[in-house]
Formats: sequence, structure tokens, C-alpha cells
Amino acid sequence: MNIQQLQQASQQLRDNKLFEWFIVSVIIISALLIGARTYPIPESVVTVIRWLDVGITVLFLFEITIRFIATDKKSRFFHSGWNLFDTLVVVVSLIPIDNSEMALVGRLVRIFRVLRMVSIIPELRTLLNSLLRALPQLGYVVLLMFIIFYIYAAIGSTFFHDINKVLWGDISISMLTLFRVMTFEDWTDVMYETMAVYPLSWLYYLTFIFLTTFAFLNMVIGIVVNVLEDEHAIEKAAQDEADGKATLDDVMRELQSLRAEVSRLKNQDNN
Amino acid sequence: MNIQQLQQASQQLRDNKLFEWFIVSVIIISALLIGARTYPIPESVVTVIRWLDVGITVLFLFEITIRFIATDKKSRFFHSGWNLFDTLVVVVSLIPIDNSEMALVGRLVRIFRVLRMVSIIPELRTLLNSLLRALPQLGYVVLLMFIIFYIYAAIGSTFFHDINKVLWGDISISMLTLFRVMTFEDWTDVMYETMAVYPLSWLYYLTFIFLTTFAFLNMVIGIVVNVLEDEHAIEKAAQDEADGKATLDDVMRELQSLRAEVSRLKNQDNN
Amino acid sequence: MNIQQLQQASQQLRDNKLFEWFIVSVIIISALLIGARTYPIPESVVTVIRWLDVGITVLFLFEITIRFIATDKKSRFFHSGWNLFDTLVVVVSLIPIDNSEMALVGRLVRIFRVLRMVSIIPELRTLLNSLLRALPQLGYVVLLMFIIFYIYAAIGSTFFHDINKVLWGDISISMLTLFRVMTFEDWTDVMYETMAVYPLSWLYYLTFIFLTTFAFLNMVIGIVVNVLEDEHAIEKAAQDEADGKATLDDVMRELQSLRAEVSRLKNQDNN
Amino acid sequence: MNIQQLQQASQQLRDNKLFEWFIVSVIIISALLIGARTYPIPESVVTVIRWLDVGITVLFLFEITIRFIATDKKSRFFHSGWNLFDTLVVVVSLIPIDNSEMALVGRLVRIFRVLRMVSIIPELRTLLNSLLRALPQLGYVVLLMFIIFYIYAAIGSTFFHDINKVLWGDISISMLTLFRVMTFEDWTDVMYETMAVYPLSWLYYLTFIFLTTFAFLNMVIGIVVNVLEDEHAIEKAAQDEADGKATLDDVMRELQSLRAEVSRLKNQDNN
Repeated sequence: MNIQQLQQASQQLRDNKLFEWFIVSVIIISALLIGARTYPIPESVVTVIRWLDVGITVLFLFEITIRFIATDKKSRFFHSGWNLFDTLVVVVSLIPIDNSEMALVGRLVRIFRVLRMVSIIPELRTLLNSLLRALPQLGYVVLLMFIIFYIYAAIGSTFFHDINKVLWGDISISMLTLFRVMTFEDWTDVMYETMAVYPLSWLYYLTFIFLTTFAFLNMVIGIVVNVLEDEHAIEKAAQDEADGKATLDDVMRELQSLRAEVSRLKNQDNN
Repeated sequence: MNIQQLQQASQQLRDNKLFEWFIVSVIIISALLIGARTYPIPESVVTVIRWLDVGITVLFLFEITIRFIATDKKSRFFHSGWNLFDTLVVVVSLIPIDNSEMALVGRLVRIFRVLRMVSIIPELRTLLNSLLRALPQLGYVVLLMFIIFYIYAAIGSTFFHDINKVLWGDISISMLTLFRVMTFEDWTDVMYETMAVYPLSWLYYLTFIFLTTFAFLNMVIGIVVNVLEDEHAIEKAAQDEADGKATLDDVMRELQSLRAEVSRLKNQDNN
Repeated sequence: MNIQQLQQASQQLRDNKLFEWFIVSVIIISALLIGARTYPIPESVVTVIRWLDVGITVLFLFEITIRFIATDKKSRFFHSGWNLFDTLVVVVSLIPIDNSEMALVGRLVRIFRVLRMVSIIPELRTLLNSLLRALPQLGYVVLLMFIIFYIYAAIGSTFFHDINKVLWGDISISMLTLFRVMTFEDWTDVMYETMAVYPLSWLYYLTFIFLTTFAFLNMVIGIVVNVLEDEHAIEKAAQDEADGKATLDDVMRELQSLRAEVSRLKNQDNN
Repeated sequence: MNIQQLQQASQQLRDNKLFEWFIVSVIIISALLIGARTYPIPESVVTVIRWLDVGITVLFLFEITIRFIATDKKSRFFHSGWNLFDTLVVVVSLIPIDNSEMALVGRLVRIFRVLRMVSIIPELRTLLNSLLRALPQLGYVVLLMFIIFYIYAAIGSTFFHDINKVLWGDISISMLTLFRVMTFEDWTDVMYETMAVYPLSWLYYLTFIFLTTFAFLNMVIGIVVNVLEDEHAIEKAAQDEADGKATLDDVMRELQSLRAEVSRLKNQDNN
């Protein structure tokens, strides 16, 4: 059995629906094991889980190898972020988690194996990609919100520093406090505390809430409009192309050729 | 009076507006009785309520029988989820609620009789159906949110397990805690507690809030776009059909037949 | 000076821009006086406020009389809800507020005089009317939400009655508690309390939150779609009418008359 | 080197991309210094920061001078709000912050220098302008909400004044309390307190929440519709102009000239 035959066999296995479902169920079992470990469980079950975990790691290693062999251009395999993520997760899983320092990394990597669900199921991959694609459009609104946060945090930690060090100690703590105010989480407690010293400080909180709510709303509306426009453009392009319906340009062309015909008729009459 | 006459009489009664209003008011009285029982009431009123309850059950039994007789194909009667629900509620209401074990079921079923309002009023039925129809479209976003919740809950119960067992004891409790964080309900208390041990754990909460808010927004926008598109499609179909206005295709056909006419004219001239 | 001249003079005064601005400023002063009375003020200022209040009442009485005289058909004057509201507020203001029982009504009526701002400024009146017009469209969603609230409140006051009488004492208190849960206001405190007795009661809260959030979202989206459609319809009608641009029907008519011309040409040739 | 040469050199410098990036990085350093001062820092670092601050002030002064010289009509320079803001911030930065009274103003102005980011980066300037342009459209809704707040605050401070002076002491404090209720911030605590005296006061809170939520939703929907319409109008205008596609009017003109041609043909035949 030469390399080409191996590649073909790998491709068949990779594109097999049953194999995909098998891997999805292995990921689900892997997720359930992670959940099970957070409960107090007897030592015997822990041993079973440990052996199952080894089995899952081996299966994942096998699956990623199959996918690698099935790829035509090996160098392009790692161009896909998902392939890179899958390989990393599997490779780190191989490291034995005996010594306590690496144990935490091992456990974290096992948790992130649940994300393989996204890399395996195409619909989830598409959804996540579309979510990520929407992010850069928000770039400048996020930057503007960050500037608003930074200025208010600077003012806050300048004035309220001595009132409550836990909330306004330095600029980064102040930004966390302002994020809390933005989520309306016990924000009046924060306000009443500073109003005892600066009676007008409600102005600080109200302007902050108005600015961030307004910017947030604007961001949301921006996304809605973008999504609606994309949908509209796709819909329109599909209509123009697929329907084969007459367009105004078709009518125009038909009309011009008719006019040419009439002109020719006139000339013919003249002769 | 044979069966066919009985069926016709039943259909007439079922489709009678007065009968519908009568049943709706019986459902409202049934709902009021349920509400009344939650107040401290004298024993005499309890007896009256009990007798009224028997009357309501008998009326519901009568109404469902009428509807069953009125149906042309008896086997199709239970194909409708609402008929099944109505029958179940009425049948379980018949069970005497003397012994304490069944009493609770009896009370619950009486509460669910309020839902019969939805099965009787066509507008509410349509509304609920349209709400339910929107659900499957959200399938993958809900799955993605569940994966986000699961991963964060696994991380949370791994790291914060020893800080607060009530909030982070196991993975299911952690998911409930994260849902609380998502609703901004005293989430800073949860955060400050873990920040005392892991000063960087605000990153955990902020990324979680951003991810879930973003996914939630995306879900909402997805529904809006879907609803708008459906409306648009219905509107467009209605316009195309009903108006009888000239379409570009009509113009095209008219133009082509005109051209043929001119061509014939030219040939005629030539001869 | 006869009645007709009086009516004309009244109409001129009513439609006078300066008079409108004067009344608006009187309303603003009236609102400021209401605000001022909530502060601790010396007795002398109270006397001034009382005299100003008399002046305002007289001015309002004068203005409503002018508006009444200016109306062509007196019987139609009270058909407008705003006129009725204005008259009621002014008449009740006339009642002396000496005895303590009526004093409260007098103060309340003076507060509601601020609402006269809405009845005077046309833009506000239009805005409020459009808000009120949107309400009936929501009828069935509101009814469905009320049914959801009622069922959950009935279940809540049945099961949680003995856990906390203040929150779940009877069905109306339970509905208030559920409204609190819907606004996410310390809802976990309510939940943790019942979870101590019924560990699965988180299901009750989560399903309630999902149902109400979903219904609320649906309501909002319903309004958005309605508003957008109305805008669209208005815009389209305006375009069709005002532009005078060629429509497909115009093109069709032009084409058919051209065809008739060509036909006539053919017949002419034949002869 | 005469004045004209100086102006040209200034314009070249101002429009230089490298110079823009340099100023942006100076603003970022300026922002970082402000943040750094909120941390406890050794005296030596404070001295360094003070010297850096002087350098930044000088650079800003240089940059604003360049921009002023580069302007063709000097009198128009201050017509732009951003130029005015930049100049003000730079000039106030020049005032020595030795005496304690001015120190606060000096620190505040240094914080507002972060806003220069918005005045320098064109995309942020456009974004902020579009946000500000959306505000006046909301004018009447904001006025209506203010009237709702004022009326409820007047009622609140009339009835609840003696229950809790901190929350309902006078009309302005009551408005702050109502804003808190609107953000759902521990609003049930406020409600339960007044319900102990006036058992029906939940009606006050529920109607207030419904009114403000409804007005707020309406405002948001209003912005969405406005934004969508603007986008639609821009899109349509762009399509009509740039595409050069046939419009119905073009078709109509073509058709009319064709008809004239056919008419001429007929006349020719007649002769």
C-alpha cells in the first residue's frame, strides 16, 4: 500500500458521515468526563475516567493524523486556524499530567477540547466565523467607548481615590468599577458613597451612563443595519442572476433593436 | 336522532360564537378560582369553590366531547397538539383529589387549565405557533451559547471550587452562577470574591459577559432579520399576485410581439 | 360687540404664536412651583407661591374659555380628549384646598397640570398619540404574557407559599415577585431561598425568564416591523404620487398605443 | 523665508502621515502618563512624568501652531469646534499647576487631552459627529420622558417624603431615585419600603417602569428607523447616479422617440 492509496483511504474515512458522528460523540463523552470530574467521585471512577481520557486522546490523535494525511498539500494544513487549534489541543493532551505544575495546563486543555465541537460541526464553524467577521466593523465604536471609559476612569481615580480605594484605587480598578456601573450592578451604592463627599457627582454617573448606553445602542444598530444590508445585497444579486427575469436593460436593448428595424423599414420605403 | 345529525348539531354548537364566549368565560372563572385559593379563605367559600370546580370540569368534559363528535375523521382529532392537551387536562381533572399524593397533581392540572385560553382563542394560538416556529432557527446559536457556558463553567468549577462551594461546587451549579452573571445579578459580588484569590479573574468574567452578550445580540438580530424577510417575502408575493400591475415581463412580451408585427410589415413591404 | 366678533377675536388670540408661548411659559412656571414646594421653604415664599398659584389657575381658566369660545361647534369641544383633560384639571384647581381631605386632590391636580405641556405643544401631542396607537397592536402579546405570569404565579404561590409569605403569600404578590424576577432584580436571592427546599426550583425561574424574555423580544420586534412597514408604505405612496415618474403601467400604455399605430400603418399599406 | 513659504511648509507638515502618527503616539503617551499617576509611584518617576508632561505640552503647542499657520483664512480656524477645543486644552495646559487651586483644573485638562485622539483621527471624528447628529431627532422623546420623570418625581416627593428623606426628600432627589428605578437597580427595596405605608404604591412603580421602558424602546426604534432610512436614501441615490443603468424614464423617452419615428413613417407612406 503506497502513499497515494493511504491518502485516498484517509480522505474516504474523513468524509465518512459515520466517522464524523463517531468523533462528535467522542467529543461529547470528553465533555461529560470534564463535567464529571467537578463532582466528588469515588477513586475507582477517577481511574476509569483516567483510562477513558487516554482513549480519547489516542482517538483524537488518530483523527488529526487521518485529516493530515488526507490533505493534498501538507504545507497548507496549518494555514487553517481550526487545524492548528485541533493539533495544539491534541499535542498538549499527550503531555503526562503527573507533576502538579503541568496538571493545571492539562486540565485546561481538556476543557478546551469541548471547542473541537465547533471545529467539527460545519454549521457552528460558519456561525462563529460570521460572528468574528462582524467584530472589525465595530472597531472604531469600541475605540471610542474605550476612550470614554479611560477619561471617566482617570477623572474617577483622581477625585474618588480617597473615598474608596477598592473601587477607585487606580485607573484600571476604576475602569472595572465603571464597567460595573455600565451593567447597572449596584451602581447607586457606588454613587451614594461619592455623593456624600461630592454632592454633584451624580452628574458624573448619569453622563457616563448616557454616553455608554448611547454608544452601545449605536453599535447594536450599526450591526443590525450591516447585517440587513448584506442580506439585501445577497438577495438582490441572487434575484438578478437566478430568476432570468427581464430587467430594464433587457427592455432597453429590445427597444433599441426595434427602433433600428423601424429605421431600416423607413429607408427601404424611401428607396 | 342518528349519528350524522348528532355530528351536525355538534359542529353548529362548536362554531357558535356564543358557545365560544361561554367557554372562554368558564376558563376565566376557572382561573379566578385558582387565584382565590391562594388567599386565606373561610371553609364555606372553599366548599363553594369545590362545587364550582366540579361544574367547570363537567363543562370542559362536555365541550371536549362536542369537539370530538364534531370532528369528521375521529382518528385525526388527536393529531392536533392542542386537542391532546385539552383532553389530557380534562381527563386528569376527573381524578378525585382526596389523597394527598394526587392532590398536588390535581392542583397543577387545574392551573394548566388557564392555558386552555390559548387553545380556544385563535389569535393566541397563532401567536404562540409563530413564537414556537422561530425557535428552531435559533438552534445553532443556542448550541454555541451552551458550549460557551459549559467551557466557562468547567473552568470556573476547576479554579473557584475551593473559594465558594455554593457558587462553584460542581459544573451544573457553576452554569447557574454564570447565568446569574449573564443577567448582571450581583455579578460583582461573585467577581470580587474570586479576585481576592486570583487577581486576574476579572478577565474570566469580562470575556464571558462580552461573549454571551455578543451571541445574545446576534441571536436577537437574527430573529429580527428573519421576521423582516418573511414579511418582505409575503408582501412581495401579495403585490405580484393581487395588484395585476404590469411587470417588466409583460412589457417584454408586448415589445416582442410589436417587433414581430414590424417584421411582418417589412416583409409585406418587400413583396 | 356681538358673539360672532367675540368668536373671531378668540380664534385670533388662540392661533397667536405669542399667546401659545405665553401659556407654555405659564405651564413651566406652574411646574417649577410644584417642584419648589417639595423643598423646605420659608413661610413667606409659601404665601408668594399660593398667590402665584391663584394667578396661574385664573390664566388657565381664561385660556380654556378662549379656546371654548373660539370653537365653531361647541358640542364638539369635549369630543377631544385633550380639551376634556384641560377643562377637568382647571375646574378641579378652582376648588379651595383648605380642608385637609381635598388638599391632596388639589396637589395632585396641580402636578397633572404639567401634562398640559403635552396638550399645548402639537409635536408632543403627535408623539403621544403615535405611542398610544402602537399599544393595541400589542394586545395579544400582552395577554399571552399575562397568562404566563398568572400560571407561574399560581404555581409559585402553591409551592413556595410556606417558604416566604412576603414574596409568595398569594397570587397577586407572586405576580409582583415574578415581575421583579423578570427585571433581574435580586432574583437569585429569591431563587436560592426556594432551592433550599425544592432543589430543582431553578427550572421554574429559568423557564420563566426564557419565556418572558422571548415574548418581550418578540413584542419589541413586532413593533419595529410594524413601524418600518408603516414608514415603507407612506414612503412608497408618496413616491408613486408626487414624483410623477414613469411607471411600468405608463410604459405599457405607451407601448400598446404604439402597437395600434403600427397596426394601422400595416392596414394602410395593405390598401 | 516669507509668510507664504512658511504656510506651504506648514501644510506639508500637517498633511504628512508620519507627523499625524507621531502626534497620535504623543497623545497615547500623554494618556498613559495620566493613568500612571493614579498608581502609587516613587518620587523620581513623578519628576520624569512632570518633565515628559512639559514636553508633551510643548509638542501640542507646536502642532496647533502648525495647524493655525497652515490654515488659509485665519478667521475660519476657530469656526471648527475641534480646533477651538484643541487650542483651549493646550492653552490651559500652559498654566503652571503649582498652587493647589489650579492644580485640579490642570489635572482635568490633562485628562481631556485624551479626547484629542478623537479630533486627530478622522474616522473617530466622523463617528462622533454622526452620534451627535442623531441627538436632536430625539428631542421631543427626551422632553416627553423628562415630563414623565417630573410628574412622577412630584408625586413621589409629595407622598413618600416622610417615608425616606434620602430617596424622596425633594423633587431632584426623587428624579435620581426614579432614574435608579428605571435602571432596575434595587428598585424593589425602594418599592417594599413605600408599600409598607401605601400598599398600592406598586402601581406607581409599575406604571412608571412601563411608561419609561415604552418611551425608551420607542426612542431606540425611532433611531433604527431613521438610520435605516438614511442608509436606504443614500444607497438609492448612489444606485440611480453611478450605475448608469436604464431607468423607466429612459425607456419612456426611447419609446416616445420610436413612436415619433413610426408616425413619420406613416406620413411618408401617405405622401
